[in-house]
Amino acid sequence: MYFVTYKVLDRERIGVLDQKKERIIPLDKFFQGENIKNYPETMLELIESFTEEMQEKLFSMIASGSMDYEGIDRKNAKICAPIPYPRRDVFCLGKNYLDHAKEVGTVLGDEDEIPKAPIYFSKVAFPAIGDGDFIDSHPGIVEKLDYEAELAVVIGKEGKNIPLEAAEAYIFGYTILNDISERRLQKLHGQWHKGKSLDTFCPMGPYLVHKSVIPFPVELNITCHVNDELRQNSNTRYLIFDIPYIIHDLSKGITLKPGDIIATGTPAGVGMGFWPFKFLNRGDVVKCSIEKIGTLTNIVK
Amino acid sequence: MYFVTYKVLDRERIGVLDQKKERIIPLDKFFQGENIKNYPETMLELIESFTEEMQEKLFSMIASGSMDYEGIDRKNAKICAPIPYPRRDVFCLGKNYLDHAKEVGTVLGDEDEIPKAPIYFSKVAFPAIGDGDFIDSHPGIVEKLDYEAELAVVIGKEGKNIPLEAAEAYIFGYTILNDISERRLQKLHGQWHKGKSLDTFCPMGPYLVHKSVIPFPVELNITCHVNDELRQNSNTRYLIFDIPYIIHDLSKGITLKPGDIIATGTPAGVGMGFWPFKFLNRGDVVKCSIEKIGTLTNIVK
Repeated sequence: MYFVTYKVLDRERIGVLDQKKERIIPLDKFFQGENIKNYPETMLELIESFTEEMQEKLFSMIASGSMDYEGIDRKNAKICAPIPYPRRDVFCLGKNYLDHAKEVGTVLGDEDEIPKAPIYFSKVAFPAIGDGDFIDSHPGIVEKLDYEAELAVVIGKEGKNIPLEAAEAYIFGYTILNDISERRLQKLHGQWHKGKSLDTFCPMGPYLVHKSVIPFPVELNITCHVNDELRQNSNTRYLIFDIPYIIHDLSKGITLKPGDIIATGTPAGVGMGFWPFKFLNRGDVVKCSIEKIGTLTNIVK
Repeated sequence: MYFVTYKVLDRERIGVLDQKKERIIPLDKFFQGENIKNYPETMLELIESFTEEMQEKLFSMIASGSMDYEGIDRKNAKICAPIPYPRRDVFCLGKNYLDHAKEVGTVLGDEDEIPKAPIYFSKVAFPAIGDGDFIDSHPGIVEKLDYEAELAVVIGKEGKNIPLEAAEAYIFGYTILNDISERRLQKLHGQWHKGKSLDTFCPMGPYLVHKSVIPFPVELNITCHVNDELRQNSNTRYLIFDIPYIIHDLSKGITLKPGDIIATGTPAGVGMGFWPFKFLNRGDVVKCSIEKIGTLTNIVK
């Protein structure tokens, strides 16, 4: 199931794609049909209230095509980030693919390039921008604008000190996140937070794909194209710290909440990894794709 | 004016202290008296809707003692963090007092101890805990639990690329924040985020003091006692990057929002700064005090 936050006539709504992924079925229609009061109106509310029963009914509704007539062509809707206003900053991992850890290590002269523990930092996404939205080049502030295609895990259930083997049960689904980074600020401010957190630096989407669609462990091809040039090309099976480990380790002492977003890190091929550097310029089109999830496209303004 | 988020009979409310700081006047009483519909019910809503007119009326109400009969003894209320659930993670500064930058530099063998630009990182506060609440010692996870008394600035008005000279206008007020840190995790995970973000690691309060009470530039004595032993003792005038500069610099490319919290850094005397180390143990009572704001007391459980 492909959940989507979208706007029609400036009203933000949540929906689910039909079987052909061409039409968006508004979820309020579904819940009204089911005679459910106080139904979820935002993705965060949906994640919090989601049940297996709901999952089964939605699944059969989509399979049967029974609500397709209620849907709208997705081309006629503005696609937003699945969770435009996360409850907390996005939890992010740094250097979590070996080839990327090495390319960064080479640039920074960092001998100790392979992390012995996950590197966690956070990123403001308030709002996260959606598919088709512009990445602001912040003239006068930004010099070294970079892309990072990442698989993001969205938590579905509250949990702390989650055992490795239970991790999957705490996942709601997956989406694509482009961890836009300004390399000068990332270095200048010692810690990475600010260089990762400028306005529009968190494109996410286009869909939040329910975990039932993605086999576990998650082994999906991930690519990033800039103006149709392939820059990143890997598979999530090459994560140094895999998804169960991240959920297990991050939740040690920190209660994860439904709707929390964890960006699992980016493979080699970021702009900083090339010589000469291949940073983003105005007008560049960045496409992050992950198998079974889709393509997140943004343009640098 | 000393704003407070508090609980009576498990219902969370907002109030303001009377002139003697002994009684809490519930703000709903004030707004009902003023015949204001849709009045703010949380501190975030108050900050967003606060006007100069409101400020003047509240000020004269407190001065006249006209609502004191509506108040409750603050000892009969549970004091919460002023903003228990901030909209985004707390923006924090590292090494922003010279003496602290040096003590940390000595421990870490960091030659380059004086930052050339503010070091920004972030901290989960979801919820932030209040005065009197317990800091969890997370047995099995935490080894080197440390305190950091800090002045926190709360933003009052949305702004981006804020000029230095306009910074004060974007402030709503000030509070005390204890930036509880786990030194092992702070180092282990490369970036500081996780070691700063465990559950209960963000004590804040007891009050959110409106900026009208604090002369600008802000020069306030700041101390931290552990079990009545004075550990930190400085003044906010010794910030390396002062409040106007922080607001100006952090807002370059990042839209600050009403209710955003910026923890401005801690002076020398943290547990890591002593040899042998003086980390926190179960049962320790930590008191962070800032002149004109008050004292934030928490106990390690």
